[in-house]
Amino acid sequence: MNSPSSLEKLIEQFQRFPGIGKKTARRLAYYVITRQDNMAQKFADALLDAKSKIGYCTVCQNLTDGEICSVCSSSDRDRSVICVVEDPQDILAFERTREYKGLYHVLHGAISPLDGIGPEQIKLRELMSRLSSGEVREIIVATNPTVEGEATASYISRLVKAMGIKVSRLAYGIPVGSDLEYADEVTLSRALEGRNEL
Amino acid sequence: MNSPSSLEKLIEQFQRFPGIGKKTARRLAYYVITRQDNMAQKFADALLDAKSKIGYCTVCQNLTDGEICSVCSSSDRDRSVICVVEDPQDILAFERTREYKGLYHVLHGAISPLDGIGPEQIKLRELMSRLSSGEVREIIVATNPTVEGEATASYISRLVKAMGIKVSRLAYGIPVGSDLEYADEVTLSRALEGRNEL
Repeated sequence: MNSPSSLEKLIEQFQRFPGIGKKTARRLAYYVITRQDNMAQKFADALLDAKSKIGYCTVCQNLTDGEICSVCSSSDRDRSVICVVEDPQDILAFERTREYKGLYHVLHGAISPLDGIGPEQIKLRELMSRLSSGEVREIIVATNPTVEGEATASYISRLVKAMGIKVSRLAYGIPVGSDLEYADEVTLSRALEGRNEL
Repeated sequence: MNSPSSLEKLIEQFQRFPGIGKKTARRLAYYVITRQDNMAQKFADALLDAKSKIGYCTVCQNLTDGEICSVCSSSDRDRSVICVVEDPQDILAFERTREYKGLYHVLHGAISPLDGIGPEQIKLRELMSRLSSGEVREIIVATNPTVEGEATASYISRLVKAMGIKVSRLAYGIPVGSDLEYADEVTLSRALEGRNEL
């Protein structure tokens, strides 16, 4: 038995999301189609509405439905520090800490030569142009702890240092609340390297 | 920082799916919005297209884009057996076995008095009307092994037996390839009860 082709196409769309396999995609597609309350229509409306209204902040490239995002337009933020992240979601992680009061910059990716993503394909030029005002004292590079994130961090570091601006990188170490037994050896080596005196 | 409201609404729609929590919903919403290839539009189109074309098979209530689904309209199927399932997805599970050659009937739910779902709220009347032709010799009740599935199975069993038609239920037992150590006591008791002589 084959599913109807319009259903198969919907399943394919669900499968394009990261972390959603064939089985989950099928389950989600069946769910949205068989719901009584016209969920499919509401979902499609929400998709198109978000897609049409959401764009990138002209300053930090975060998602926003205006010209400038709520962080960049806030008067409470420290404009001398910029935290550079790969994805807009990363900003939410920082905001949840309630510790960081500076600005952000979203690269929308990381340098990955193997995937054909060079410095030109991420929002790096936009970052550099923000630094020319002289207002920024420090760049915190918070790209992901992956090969690509590291490569991006060192690339940014070289450029920014050349402008005489301080660059820092998030600390590596063991996650709070985890168990040492399960820490991988690279993380543990980094935690040792970065140990602090008590 | 708050996300733009149109984005929050999209996240809410993703969260309505079973098994998708706040964090995953946010990740999926960000993904579909930031994709370069107009994924949001394609996704919305697939949703609306599937919703408009897909309906229930007038015979077995399976999902179909025609009047009658591909199983019911096939000439290769044994029309004397009907396998009764709760959801359309369950049919795919049976089809994957390549063992079952009979027809299906989708109840679109199970009897659950606590949730206000009685026999009238599922496609039970449609099942009973299929039995009046006299063509059907056996009903295999393949509702889920849950309290609701069991209640539905015994309800159907009473009705169908009264019509002089054979009713069977899927065997309970230990899943193939699993480890006895992890089998719960109820499943193991049922496996014992249903043991077969070698």
